[in-house]
Amino acid sequence: MTFELMTYRDGEQLLEAAVAFPQNVSIAPAVLVVHQWGGRGEGEHRAVERLAQLGYVGVAIDVYGKGVQGNATGDNTHLIAPWAADRASLLRRLNAGVQFARSLERVNSASVAAIGYCFGGLCVLDLARSGADLSGVVSLHGTLDDNGLEPDRRISAKLLVEHGWLDPLTPPEMIFAFAEEMRRRNADWQLHVHGQAMHAFTEPHAKAPEYGMAYDANADRRSWEATASFLTEVFARKTQ
Amino acid sequence: MTFELMTYRDGEQLLEAAVAFPQNVSIAPAVLVVHQWGGRGEGEHRAVERLAQLGYVGVAIDVYGKGVQGNATGDNTHLIAPWAADRASLLRRLNAGVQFARSLERVNSASVAAIGYCFGGLCVLDLARSGADLSGVVSLHGTLDDNGLEPDRRISAKLLVEHGWLDPLTPPEMIFAFAEEMRRRNADWQLHVHGQAMHAFTEPHAKAPEYGMAYDANADRRSWEATASFLTEVFARKTQ
Repeated sequence: MTFELMTYRDGEQLLEAAVAFPQNVSIAPAVLVVHQWGGRGEGEHRAVERLAQLGYVGVAIDVYGKGVQGNATGDNTHLIAPWAADRASLLRRLNAGVQFARSLERVNSASVAAIGYCFGGLCVLDLARSGADLSGVVSLHGTLDDNGLEPDRRISAKLLVEHGWLDPLTPPEMIFAFAEEMRRRNADWQLHVHGQAMHAFTEPHAKAPEYGMAYDANADRRSWEATASFLTEVFARKTQ
Repeated sequence: MTFELMTYRDGEQLLEAAVAFPQNVSIAPAVLVVHQWGGRGEGEHRAVERLAQLGYVGVAIDVYGKGVQGNATGDNTHLIAPWAADRASLLRRLNAGVQFARSLERVNSASVAAIGYCFGGLCVLDLARSGADLSGVVSLHGTLDDNGLEPDRRISAKLLVEHGWLDPLTPPEMIFAFAEEMRRRNADWQLHVHGQAMHAFTEPHAKAPEYGMAYDANADRRSWEATASFLTEVFARKTQ
């Protein structure tokens, strides 16, 4: 496995991705990793390394800009708010990441998927909503609200949502609205609920159960296994 | 793999199980399979064979009685209704099956799990609700309503519910009530929603989408993979 920081651009803005390449594989599918509200950090780096161990090129893209870093355990509302308020710009920024991943030399550009944590979960769903030609997307403790940009767009990517039932950011009403949206768009979607998990269940430093945020070892392990199994399926189908 | 029909009893009632033993394994965990409303049939026999291929003793138990068989594609309300109306008797009948499985010579009696289809899904949840010492239970397109027998009983079995979002027998309100019940009982529960699947998604002969019942190849395959992965986890933890 080799790990590299690489820059790319969205218009004038310089962005920095962390890319992990698998060993002994000349060409491989790519899996984007979209970061949580604190920006691209350790959690995303761990994810791309694990993806490379599965034989994929793991590409942790960047929404905020090279060097922009939040506080891993603090409030990052100031970073996320502008993007949550302008989902069209967010989509353009995300697509720059997709294009960057497709352009990598060892990537099979026909086999690209995306996973995202928290804010990144919303991001990968937005990519799917836009009709992006992705094999699949996985949201891990992300919010599910539609961006309203193209409500009738057919979704071609398969979707998997890994959700903690005790996550206060994604209450039952939001699950319902999402299910109805997916039905309307005729999407191939799955929802995997972890009954005892709160928000941020994959983040080892999340320890604020009083705010509904806490690491959960079971949900972390199970959601990763489900994600790995999902990626195996979507890439196998893509190349059939 | 060897397949055998074996009889056992619940009081005076003679029951018949279909048991599949794995090859080259002297002692193995047991996985009960509880049948859908039509009684123990082809689907359950396929399931125990697949379980034996995974290295488990697959035990398709019997609720209705030896020789009592419904119509695989017809209405079996007359068979299911008495049991749905008397969940205490149902629980006793199910426990006879658990005891039978534990008593089998090649079964590790400390490692027993249960899966069930439709009516059988309700049955395995009832076993869990009773505090039965099972490693895990999986409901596949089963209904989720509590039996009210022991509402405060702690659930020790891990639970996985495989659910088709378009299943009219398990509407969203039932999902919510179940989630609240599981939270109250402090259970380790997971729900895997298959967005495009209806009721009976594992049954190849189910072809009545107008009644919300239809086979779904994706949900069938994915729910089986999730079940296999779940069994691996619950038996590994049990023996640690």
